[in-house]
Amino acid sequence: MTALEMKGCAAKKASCILGIAGETQKNLALTKIAEALMQNCGEILAENQKDLKLAEDNGMSASLLDRLALNRKRIEGIADGIRKVIALDDPIGTVSEMKTRPNGLIIGKKTVPLGVIGIIYEARPNVTVDAAVLCLKSGNAVILRGGKEAFNSNKVMVSIMRDAIKAAGLPEDCICFVEDVSRDSARELMNLTQYLDVLIPRGGAGLIRAVVENARVPVIETGIGICHVYVDDSADYSMAVDIIFNAKCSRPSVCNAIETALVSESIANKLLPDMKLKLDTKNVELRGCEMTVSILGDSVIPAKDSDYRTEFGDYILAVKVVPGIKEAIEFINTYGSGHSESIVTGSYENAQRFLREVDAAAVYVNASTRFTDGFEFGLGAEIGISTQKLHARGPMGLEQLTSSKFIIYGNGQIRQ
Amino acid sequence: MTALEMKGCAAKKASCILGIAGETQKNLALTKIAEALMQNCGEILAENQKDLKLAEDNGMSASLLDRLALNRKRIEGIADGIRKVIALDDPIGTVSEMKTRPNGLIIGKKTVPLGVIGIIYEARPNVTVDAAVLCLKSGNAVILRGGKEAFNSNKVMVSIMRDAIKAAGLPEDCICFVEDVSRDSARELMNLTQYLDVLIPRGGAGLIRAVVENARVPVIETGIGICHVYVDDSADYSMAVDIIFNAKCSRPSVCNAIETALVSESIANKLLPDMKLKLDTKNVELRGCEMTVSILGDSVIPAKDSDYRTEFGDYILAVKVVPGIKEAIEFINTYGSGHSESIVTGSYENAQRFLREVDAAAVYVNASTRFTDGFEFGLGAEIGISTQKLHARGPMGLEQLTSSKFIIYGNGQIRQ
Repeated sequence: MTALEMKGCAAKKASCILGIAGETQKNLALTKIAEALMQNCGEILAENQKDLKLAEDNGMSASLLDRLALNRKRIEGIADGIRKVIALDDPIGTVSEMKTRPNGLIIGKKTVPLGVIGIIYEARPNVTVDAAVLCLKSGNAVILRGGKEAFNSNKVMVSIMRDAIKAAGLPEDCICFVEDVSRDSARELMNLTQYLDVLIPRGGAGLIRAVVENARVPVIETGIGICHVYVDDSADYSMAVDIIFNAKCSRPSVCNAIETALVSESIANKLLPDMKLKLDTKNVELRGCEMTVSILGDSVIPAKDSDYRTEFGDYILAVKVVPGIKEAIEFINTYGSGHSESIVTGSYENAQRFLREVDAAAVYVNASTRFTDGFEFGLGAEIGISTQKLHARGPMGLEQLTSSKFIIYGNGQIRQ
Repeated sequence: MTALEMKGCAAKKASCILGIAGETQKNLALTKIAEALMQNCGEILAENQKDLKLAEDNGMSASLLDRLALNRKRIEGIADGIRKVIALDDPIGTVSEMKTRPNGLIIGKKTVPLGVIGIIYEARPNVTVDAAVLCLKSGNAVILRGGKEAFNSNKVMVSIMRDAIKAAGLPEDCICFVEDVSRDSARELMNLTQYLDVLIPRGGAGLIRAVVENARVPVIETGIGICHVYVDDSADYSMAVDIIFNAKCSRPSVCNAIETALVSESIANKLLPDMKLKLDTKNVELRGCEMTVSILGDSVIPAKDSDYRTEFGDYILAVKVVPGIKEAIEFINTYGSGHSESIVTGSYENAQRFLREVDAAAVYVNASTRFTDGFEFGLGAEIGISTQKLHARGPMGLEQLTSSKFIIYGNGQIRQ
């Protein structure tokens, strides 16, 4: 057995105990984790300093350093997040659709944990705790494989969490940590079919693609967001400009921010200058189609096809003028990543058509795509936003970390 | 583009149209399929004769020849099956959990088709129609890749179905057929990530394993059934014997039949002889543990570990005496395939424990495992029985062939 197989085996064993643990015990473990993280704040920050020092020496950019950095306030934020998860209902053990069949069998469907969940992620150390507590509350053991940049921070937090759940009477192997941060360990995790029920990658497009292409264990694809706002003929101009500005600029680095604005031809002359005026306040770089350039002038960079396929994650917006809603929907279904899409329109018919024909996890009328988020949707904390169709689509909360089994009460029934 | 990529692309295009088609049109297409199959019964039987002739020349066994054979009555059965699918509710377009958020956004979850479903299957030609109509009703385009043994039968039925759906105004590429029945085409289908949303293998253990191990598209694992009945201390003996007999002998070739009986030590002396007496009426071969052999004598073959890991699909039953429920559950969770498991008991506590701790798609108390089936569960026709935890578990009906998207109605909301 390799080191990782041994971890897989330990996690599987732990998952059998955790899977039938009650809500009281799981919440006790979560409470102890939150307390222990705060009590050991100093130690965590010391380890985080090591990571930051190494990263600085390796020339990491300021924005990435900021993602990597922890401080007392951020750790308080992490502990607050745990308290929010404690407050959520236990998703396990709910029996639904129970009915009596003509032969007297009583059949229902009961929610159960998935089992062992692997998480592969990159530089942000808070993912270590966020992912572990969601898995714990939903009765799943977790194998965490974080990025090398946050290795020391991740390691100490996992160690604190393992002690805390042990103190709550649960096996510490409910939370396992992969210490080998080489590509080899990632690849081995992707093929750990014997022990892993699902693998969820969290990070940039490169990581997600590598996991989807190489994994033999079931994967839930998350987080790549090439999102659009389409402004229809009958849109309220100022609403359209506000929504585009918000969807692009309120937080350009996140997956529910837009990368491309589509504008109907009949209103492009009036809308595009207003839009540019507003986006200029944030110095947004525009990359436009021919018509956009002809309307807005040379300050707009001519867009290449690849610009419409890129998640900029920055103050850059691709712009395209389209003949109308039909072409907008075709464009979105071709270039979009199936994350979040919005139409701004005054037309009842076009609103319904957009909702029906656009193929994405979240489809909006007259609102910013930035709302695609577990809390904003009223679902609670999320482990990621699924952009695939199987199992779960959109924000994945506790409920999406469960499976089900049929339970059947009989009194001697045999099949004819 | 390869021939299969062209099919994938055509199916994807067709799926966009089918995905938004209404129930009336889909049911019209299904009606036309049922009619056309009956009208062209002679042609189908002629093509089936070609397959049977080839199979006989190749020395196919009588039981496999029987699976391959069609006759007028079987085609009537297939058409009847289609009428049952017509009678089921359309699973697409249902909006649930719609709620108004504090900021006025109205958010709901709408069922949508998965898109394009691939089916890889073996010798039974009825799967061609059963799978195609379930996909059609649930708004999914399908790519069918059947076994070479049923090639001529499959091909003619697909051709008839394509004409029928065209006559109903739907694209014929909603049902695509892979004419290349080499291993290459199966492998290519397993990697058609650009066009295929999910791949469902239907057939024997070898096929399922090959697909699970080699596919890069998402797979739903179906149908491997290493199922058990465990007879607890407090069981009603005659109920236990009846359930074991039914679960083994009513149809030994299907996946919800049992392969192993587990018996609690304290009752083995009394139960095993009764059980043997009943199983002897069907000449069931017993392969038992040491204690079973010591109780029943030399007519029982000593079981090897591999016997507990084999889906016999025949009148063969492995038997094991265990100390009690704890060991029975451990055995099942180690050797079972996660399909269907049953306990026979008079103990309330043990019944609840078995339901809670056994990890399988369907867990029974005091009933035969043979009931794991879409119709028996009241779910309607099924495309297979999933033994995995992701997306769907247990009998997969129309609902399990859907995904969802969030739809959001706003009036200008932007995120703070």
